[in-house]
Amino acid sequence: MSSNAPSTQLAQLSQAKVAGGWHQQYQHPASTTACNMRFAIFLPPNASAANKVPVLYWLSGLTCSDENFMQKAGAFKMAAQLGMAIVAPDTSPRGDEVPDAPDGAYDLGLGAGFYLNATQAPWQRHYQMYDYIVHELPPLIEAHFPVTTQRAISGHSMGGHGALTIALKNPQRYTSVSAFSPICHPSNCPWGQKAFSHYLGEDKASWLEYDAAELLKANKTELSILVDQGDADNFLAEQLNPQSLVDAAAVSGSALTLRMQPGYDHSYFFISSFIDEHLAFHAKYLA
Amino acid sequence: MSSNAPSTQLAQLSQAKVAGGWHQQYQHPASTTACNMRFAIFLPPNASAANKVPVLYWLSGLTCSDENFMQKAGAFKMAAQLGMAIVAPDTSPRGDEVPDAPDGAYDLGLGAGFYLNATQAPWQRHYQMYDYIVHELPPLIEAHFPVTTQRAISGHSMGGHGALTIALKNPQRYTSVSAFSPICHPSNCPWGQKAFSHYLGEDKASWLEYDAAELLKANKTELSILVDQGDADNFLAEQLNPQSLVDAAAVSGSALTLRMQPGYDHSYFFISSFIDEHLAFHAKYLA
Repeated sequence: MSSNAPSTQLAQLSQAKVAGGWHQQYQHPASTTACNMRFAIFLPPNASAANKVPVLYWLSGLTCSDENFMQKAGAFKMAAQLGMAIVAPDTSPRGDEVPDAPDGAYDLGLGAGFYLNATQAPWQRHYQMYDYIVHELPPLIEAHFPVTTQRAISGHSMGGHGALTIALKNPQRYTSVSAFSPICHPSNCPWGQKAFSHYLGEDKASWLEYDAAELLKANKTELSILVDQGDADNFLAEQLNPQSLVDAAAVSGSALTLRMQPGYDHSYFFISSFIDEHLAFHAKYLA
Repeated sequence: MSSNAPSTQLAQLSQAKVAGGWHQQYQHPASTTACNMRFAIFLPPNASAANKVPVLYWLSGLTCSDENFMQKAGAFKMAAQLGMAIVAPDTSPRGDEVPDAPDGAYDLGLGAGFYLNATQAPWQRHYQMYDYIVHELPPLIEAHFPVTTQRAISGHSMGGHGALTIALKNPQRYTSVSAFSPICHPSNCPWGQKAFSHYLGEDKASWLEYDAAELLKANKTELSILVDQGDADNFLAEQLNPQSLVDAAAVSGSALTLRMQPGYDHSYFFISSFIDEHLAFHAKYLA
C-alpha cells in the first residue's frame, strides 16, 4: 500500500487462489459515483512489487457485476502465462441511495450504467461510470497493487460499448482495445436509445461522444481494435450492429479487425471460447 | 436418435456453441428418481456418428445443478482438444413432488442427493441418485449422443464422494476416477452423518457401501485414482479427510494419487486451476 492511498479506502471482500495467482474482491468509497463500488482483480503469479504487471480492464454487460467475467470467462490460465492482471469493475453504482429504473427494467439503472456520465435527474449524482472507469479506478489500482500504468481495455455487449468508447476517447491511456459482441452504435438501437435518453436527455448531439461508431467515424485512431461477434447472437441485428463499426473505420481510415464467429451466441460460452486470443492480442501491445 | 430410445424422452432446454463444440441442456423423465431430471452435455467438435467419443461424467457438490461445472470450470478447450464429451447431471431429484429438508438446509434434500439410493421415508421414492447415475443416465446418453461406452468419472466435494464410491463399486463401468476436495469418509463427518442418517437410517452397516474410505479399505482396486485437495479449504479438517483415503489405500494395497495443493480453497477457482490435468489424466485411460 502506498502512503498517498490509505489502505482503509479498500475493504477486501474475498480472496481465492486460482491458476497460481489470486482472485480478490474489494469495495471502496468512490467519489465519482458517490457510493461504495466493488471490483475484482486477478493478479498473476509473477506479479510483485519488484515485478509489476500491466492491467487489462474488463467491462461487463447488462445485469452483470464484477463476478460474471471472473467466474465464467476462463481467462486466468492465459493471464497467468502472459503475466497480466485483470480488473473487473461493477456495471453501475450500487446501494440503497442509488436510483434504479422505476419498473426494475434490466437495461436501465442498476447493472446498466452504460459507462457514461449522466447529466439528467435522477441519474446524474451517481451514474458517473465514465469518470469512475477512466479517472478514479486506474489510479486506485495502480496505488494499491503491483501493476504498471500500462492498460488495455475490453468488454462484452454494453461493456464492449464501454471499452470501445473509452479507448477511442482516451487513446493515450490504453495500449489496445477489444470487445465481444459490443453495442457498436447505441444512438441507433433500442438499448442505447433508452439508456441515452434517460441518462443524457433528448439532445442527441450529447449522445455522439458515447457512440463507438460515431467516434470512430469522426476521428482516425491509431489504436489496435479487435472485435469478435457471434453470428448466432440473438441481439445481433437489433442491438449490436457491428457493420456500423466497419463503416466508421472505413470513413476515418482506421484499422479494425472484426471477426464474425459462426454459430456463437451472446453468452459467456462465446467469451470463454475466444478470451485467450484477446489476452494474447492485448499482450502484444502491453509488452 | 436410436429406435429403442425415442427422442420424446429428451427435451432440449438450451444449446450454445463453445470451444468449437456444443453445450446443451436436456430434461427427461427418469424412472429411477420418479421425476424429471436435467443434465448438461458438452460435445467436442470432433464428435459425430462416425467418430464417437468417450464421456467424462462430472458429479457436482452440495447446492449445485448441472450448470455450475459447465459455467465455471473452464474445461471445454481441453475437452475439445482431447475429444472428450462431458456430462453433468443434477445433484438430486427435483420438482414439487420431491421432498426437501424441512428446514430448507443446503446439505439435505434438494441439491444434496449424495449419489446414493435412499431407503428411508420420505426420501426413498425419489432419492435414488446412485441408480440414476450408474444405471439410467449412461444408457440414455449412449443411445442419444455420438459417444462410446467408455466412461470416466469425476466430481467435487459431495460429487467427489459420488465419483469415488460409484467407481469403486463399479470398476468395470469406468476406466478411471478423479475427485476435487471429495468427502472421503462420510460415515465419519457431519455432512455425511446427517445425510446418511436421514437417507439410509441409523444402521451404520448400510452406510459403508457409500463411504469411499471404507470401500477402498475393504477391497484392492485396479482403478487409477487422482485426488486434488486445496490446503486452504475451509472444509478440509471437519468434512473432507483425505488422509482417510490414503490410509484406506494402504490397507488394501491400492494405488492412489493425492495431491495437496497449497493455498487453494473449496471453490470453482480451484477446480478451474486443475481441471485440465484431470481431463488429461482420464484421457490416458479412455484412449
